[in-house]
Amino acid sequence: MLETLSEHACFGGVQGFYRHQSAAIGLPMKFGVFVPPQAKAGPVPALVWLAGLTCNEETFAIKAGAQRVAAQLGLMLVTPDTSPRATGLEGAGGADAAWDFGTAAGFYLDATQAPWATHWRMESYITQDLLATLAQHFPLRPQATGLFGHSMGGHGALTLGLRHPGLFASVSAFAPIAAPMQCPWGVKAFTGYLGADRSAWAAHDATELVRAGHRLAPGAPPLLVDQGEADRFLAEQLHPHLFEAACRQTGVPLLLRRHAGYDHGYYFIASFIEDHLRHHAGACAASSASNAATGTAFENR
Amino acid sequence: MLETLSEHACFGGVQGFYRHQSAAIGLPMKFGVFVPPQAKAGPVPALVWLAGLTCNEETFAIKAGAQRVAAQLGLMLVTPDTSPRATGLEGAGGADAAWDFGTAAGFYLDATQAPWATHWRMESYITQDLLATLAQHFPLRPQATGLFGHSMGGHGALTLGLRHPGLFASVSAFAPIAAPMQCPWGVKAFTGYLGADRSAWAAHDATELVRAGHRLAPGAPPLLVDQGEADRFLAEQLHPHLFEAACRQTGVPLLLRRHAGYDHGYYFIASFIEDHLRHHAGACAASSASNAATGTAFENR
Repeated sequence: MLETLSEHACFGGVQGFYRHQSAAIGLPMKFGVFVPPQAKAGPVPALVWLAGLTCNEETFAIKAGAQRVAAQLGLMLVTPDTSPRATGLEGAGGADAAWDFGTAAGFYLDATQAPWATHWRMESYITQDLLATLAQHFPLRPQATGLFGHSMGGHGALTLGLRHPGLFASVSAFAPIAAPMQCPWGVKAFTGYLGADRSAWAAHDATELVRAGHRLAPGAPPLLVDQGEADRFLAEQLHPHLFEAACRQTGVPLLLRRHAGYDHGYYFIASFIEDHLRHHAGACAASSASNAATGTAFENR
Repeated sequence: MLETLSEHACFGGVQGFYRHQSAAIGLPMKFGVFVPPQAKAGPVPALVWLAGLTCNEETFAIKAGAQRVAAQLGLMLVTPDTSPRATGLEGAGGADAAWDFGTAAGFYLDATQAPWATHWRMESYITQDLLATLAQHFPLRPQATGLFGHSMGGHGALTLGLRHPGLFASVSAFAPIAAPMQCPWGVKAFTGYLGADRSAWAAHDATELVRAGHRLAPGAPPLLVDQGEADRFLAEQLHPHLFEAACRQTGVPLLLRRHAGYDHGYYFIASFIEDHLRHHAGACAASSASNAATGTAFENR
């Protein structure tokens, strides 16, 4: 059951916002979808964007200017919300007490600690409920889904991409929280959602996942990461150099671009979003071709 | 005196937000400016965007995706706020009582009625204080300024463009309130700001201005107006057909484009903003060339 909240014509396609019931989270969740004009002729690849702290399903759709390029390349853009909402935990000291934990701060993992474990299950939501709903209700080309995101959502893109290589054909990020075990945002989130035992944290830290041997799907293009050098969170929270070192040590292909003068916001993202869409579009085309070839071979047996 | 509120690298240029004291309004006013990379080499043409009801100086900068094209074409983008703020008239029944009158609803005219006449002087603000501050603090090419806007700001672009042809080299609009004397938004605003005597209203109604013989600057390109056909305000509030008829009757060049399926919002604006920037860029280039020719002739005397 998919509820349409609004739909807007946009670059010859449709930017819509929807609500559905998530079994993983146990509550309704909102998401946005841009369907490009090419979808009238058949299924298209999709890119899932994971947004950052304080954002919601509208942020990327409003601020990134990505629909123009998606309409050129024939890409669907999917923008889930950043946490469960109206969970009943909003009271004093609860989900709304901080801007970097709880509401709009799901960190794209499944919490194991009370009271968060009941609803804060964003990893299962993204990898199961959201993808299933997309496949059911939108003209999605199978096995041609890319994943990208910003800040907390960049962390989400890297970790979910590395943890679920079968689901995502390509991964990129803007200013990701690249080593969350070593920054205040990550330590706060992991302590709250996963508990004080740090042995449970590494499975949700992109730098640690790479060190432990996790890889993107075979045939995926290099990880693309853009980082502004005037980002006020760079030194304390983001640590792309640690992720870069881990990738170098383990031979993981990474294209890390540092941009002088750019900060942490969507003016930075908008400036380079076209590069990311083209990066993913190439991967989706390759993945679809490989997939189609496999399909043909199967039919010929 | 110009106060910098924030500056963000964007497409090789800078998107900034500023505050200055307006003599016309008697209060501080905020505005945004995107300075394109070409401004490092010398003055550039500017486009002033007038936003609609409920908007502010950030709306266009965040939502329209115009900086990309402005950075290609070498255009400055200027986004004033939509009314005075913190006027002391916010109390019950005052400036904040409605979303379509008072705060964020200045209608780009100088009010003559109490209590609005003290601060609600947006026409003088735009045409005097804002342009003067731009000339003083930004690398603005003289006599190469275009004017455009949306909804209430489309009304502003058409009326200020027709009332001050010496200031603006080109004019365009998205979904303008094109005949405000004949719609509820316009009647409410004009009654409040200008009084019940309708004879004072025609000077601020684009359709009436065209009928009365007002014209854009000599050499200006045709008025460009984009209108979505799924715009929920089209039938009751906007009346582009009345403006179109007035232009046809009086021989005013108008390019009115109707777009099936598009609504009143920024997803519509973003879809066609590139056309507007290119429309103005052509006019600015022509105006600058003409201006340069005049300048040369003067020097040769």
